[in-house]
Amino acid sequence: MTASTLPPTGETLSYEQAGVNYDLIDPLKVAAQRAAAATAGHLSGHGFTEVKASRGESAYVVDVGPFYLASIVECLGSKALVADEMKALTGKSYYAGIAQDTIAMAVNDLITVGATPLVVQAYWAAGGSDWFGDAQRAQALVEGWKAACDTCKVAWGGGETPALAGIVEGGRIDLAASCTGIINPKSRLSVGDELGAGDAIVLLASSGIHANGLSLARKLAERLPQGYLTEIAPGLTYGDALLAPTALYSPVTEALAQAGVKVHYSANITGHGWRKLLRHPATLTYRINAIPAVPRVLSFIAEQANHDAREAYSTLNMGAGFALFVSQADAQRTVEIAQAQGIDAIIAGQVEAGAKQLLIEPIDVRFGDDDLQLR
Amino acid sequence: MTASTLPPTGETLSYEQAGVNYDLIDPLKVAAQRAAAATAGHLSGHGFTEVKASRGESAYVVDVGPFYLASIVECLGSKALVADEMKALTGKSYYAGIAQDTIAMAVNDLITVGATPLVVQAYWAAGGSDWFGDAQRAQALVEGWKAACDTCKVAWGGGETPALAGIVEGGRIDLAASCTGIINPKSRLSVGDELGAGDAIVLLASSGIHANGLSLARKLAERLPQGYLTEIAPGLTYGDALLAPTALYSPVTEALAQAGVKVHYSANITGHGWRKLLRHPATLTYRINAIPAVPRVLSFIAEQANHDAREAYSTLNMGAGFALFVSQADAQRTVEIAQAQGIDAIIAGQVEAGAKQLLIEPIDVRFGDDDLQLR
Repeated sequence: MTASTLPPTGETLSYEQAGVNYDLIDPLKVAAQRAAAATAGHLSGHGFTEVKASRGESAYVVDVGPFYLASIVECLGSKALVADEMKALTGKSYYAGIAQDTIAMAVNDLITVGATPLVVQAYWAAGGSDWFGDAQRAQALVEGWKAACDTCKVAWGGGETPALAGIVEGGRIDLAASCTGIINPKSRLSVGDELGAGDAIVLLASSGIHANGLSLARKLAERLPQGYLTEIAPGLTYGDALLAPTALYSPVTEALAQAGVKVHYSANITGHGWRKLLRHPATLTYRINAIPAVPRVLSFIAEQANHDAREAYSTLNMGAGFALFVSQADAQRTVEIAQAQGIDAIIAGQVEAGAKQLLIEPIDVRFGDDDLQLR
Repeated sequence: MTASTLPPTGETLSYEQAGVNYDLIDPLKVAAQRAAAATAGHLSGHGFTEVKASRGESAYVVDVGPFYLASIVECLGSKALVADEMKALTGKSYYAGIAQDTIAMAVNDLITVGATPLVVQAYWAAGGSDWFGDAQRAQALVEGWKAACDTCKVAWGGGETPALAGIVEGGRIDLAASCTGIINPKSRLSVGDELGAGDAIVLLASSGIHANGLSLARKLAERLPQGYLTEIAPGLTYGDALLAPTALYSPVTEALAQAGVKVHYSANITGHGWRKLLRHPATLTYRINAIPAVPRVLSFIAEQANHDAREAYSTLNMGAGFALFVSQADAQRTVEIAQAQGIDAIIAGQVEAGAKQLLIEPIDVRFGDDDLQLR
C-alpha cells in the first residue's frame, strides 16, 4: 500500500476525531510519571534498586539481586465493544479472542524489556452481575484466557471480577491484565543500552489491528452502510477481521533467548503505529527498506479514513506487530526462530548513525523526533 | 454495638438487594479458578513452582528460588461514586483518599501471604479524556497515589490511563491497582501452614468502611432525606465519614517482620466482614472475647439498614480491618508494634481446636463453616 493507492473515499478521520484526546490525558500522565519516579527510592529500604532506564519503557523493572523483576498492567481498550456489536449481528461469541487480546496487551509489553512472563492476573470489571450470567460469553472469556496463558507459558494467578454498576456501563466489561515476570539471566535485560548503529530491525507480523486503533475503526463502521458486516475481502466481514486476536509474541522472545540470540532492544507496535520504532531515546536513524504485507483490515481502514501512507503508518501497525533490534549476524536466525513459532517475520532494515528519524523507504515516509512524544 | 441496640428504623436491606448478585458471578469464578489452576504447570518450564496453598488466598505466590514472588490486581469498587457525589455537594475533591483506598485494596491483600510490597501499577480507566481535564481532581489522584506509595514504601512503577468511552460511564473512572512483592526470607510465607490451636487473634483497627460495603452504603444514602450530608456525629457528615481512606497495613506487617514476630496467618477483612476470619480451610474454632470500637459510620449503616449484629458483622468490618494470627507469646508485642505504626490493635481472642466456627462472644454471634464460601 502506498499513499497514491489510498482513494479519497470520504472525509479524513484522525484519531482525535475518533474520540481520544491526548492533550487532556497527557498533563496528568506527566504529573503521574514525575510522582512515580519520586517513589523509586523506597526500593533501597528493601535492599533493591529500580532499573532507571525502564521508566518510560513499556514495563517497569526492579533489580532484586539474582534477577530483575518486571511488572505491568494493561487495558484492552475498546475492542470488546466490537465483539458486543458482532455478537448482536451474528450470534457468535468473540470473547475467547478478546481474552487473548487482553493478555497480549500485557505480555507483549512486558517482554520488550527482556522479561519472561510468569504470572498473569485477570481484571474483568463488568457493568453488573448480569454480565456474568451469559454463560456462553463468560465461558469463552475463561477458555480464551486460559488458552493465551498456555501459549505464553504463564501461570494464571487469579484476579478480580467486580460488578461495577454506575462505573462500567450496563452490558459492558472493562478488561485488563497485569503481568509479572523476571529477567533471568540478567543479561537478557533489554532497555536499550545495547541498541546501536549497525543493528538489524526485524519486524514480526501482526495478525490484524490487534487492540489499538479501535476507536477509529469503530467510528468508520458507523459510516459504512453495512457496518461491521461489510465484506472487505471474499467471505471476510469488517467485524470478523477486526476481531482477529492479537498475536502473542512471548513464544518468539523465549525461543530467541533459548537459542542464545541477544535482543538489543524491542518495541511493541501499538498506539502511534510505526512511530513506536522511534521509542528509544538515542539519536539514531532507523532505515526501513522492506515492509511486511498489510492485513486487509488495515488497508481497508486506511482507505476508509482517507489516510495517506504517513498517517496510516503513524496510527496503525500496518502488518508489523513487534520490532526486534538484533545484531546483523543474528537477523536471519531471528526471522527463522520467529517463523518456527508460527509468527512471520522479515528483516526490514537497519539502525544507522544519524539524526533521530524513521525512514520507511518503500513508501517514502519519514518520521522525525517530533513525531513521537511518549516519555 | 449489640443486636438489641439496632433500632428497626426501616426495611432491612441486604447486600444482594443493594445490587450485587453473587450467584451470577460465582459460576464464572469457579470456572475461572479451575482454568487458572490448570496453568500452574507452565512455571516448571521456567524452573519454578507455584505455592499451591496460595490458590484461594488473597494473593498468588510463586517459588522463584531465593524467595517467593507474590502478585495481585485489585479493584477499588464503587467508592469513587461517593466521592463524585460529595464533590457535587461540597466542592471538595476526595480523590487523594480514593487513591489511597485503591492502593489499600491491593497492598492489604498482598501482605496476607507474608509479602513485602515492592511495586504498584496504576489502572485508571476513565469514561473519556475529559475526566483527566479536571486538573484539581487529577492532581489529587496523583498526589494521593504517591502518598500511599510513600506510606507503604513501594515504588510506583507506572500504569495505564485509558479513556474508555462506551465502556466506562461518562464522568466516571474505574480504578484498580496491581501490586508485586516478594516474600523474603522465605520463612515469612504465611499461607496458613502454621495456624493452629492456641494462636492469638490480633485485630487491627479499620479507619471506617474502607472500600467494601459501598453498594449498600450508597443505597442507604438514597433513603436519607439529607443523603450524604446527613450528620451522623457532630460535624461529621455521612459522606465525609464514608470517604475516610482505607488504612494501609503494610507498615505493620513490615515492622512485625523486622521485630522477628512470625505471623502464622492473616486475613484482610473486606467483603463478607468478619466471616473472613473463617478464611483458612482448617477445622478450627475462632473465639473472640473482645471486639474493637465500631466506627460511627458503620454503626450508622447497620442501624439504617436494620441489620442485627449478625448481619452487620457478616457484611462490614465493624472496626477490624485486618486480622493477624500469632503465637500467644507474640500477641502483646504485635499490638504494640501496630500501635507504634499508628494503627490501633487489640488481642481479640484465640484459635481453639473444635468445629470450624467463629464465636463473637461479646455480641453472642456465631458463624459456621457454611457462612463463608470463598474458595
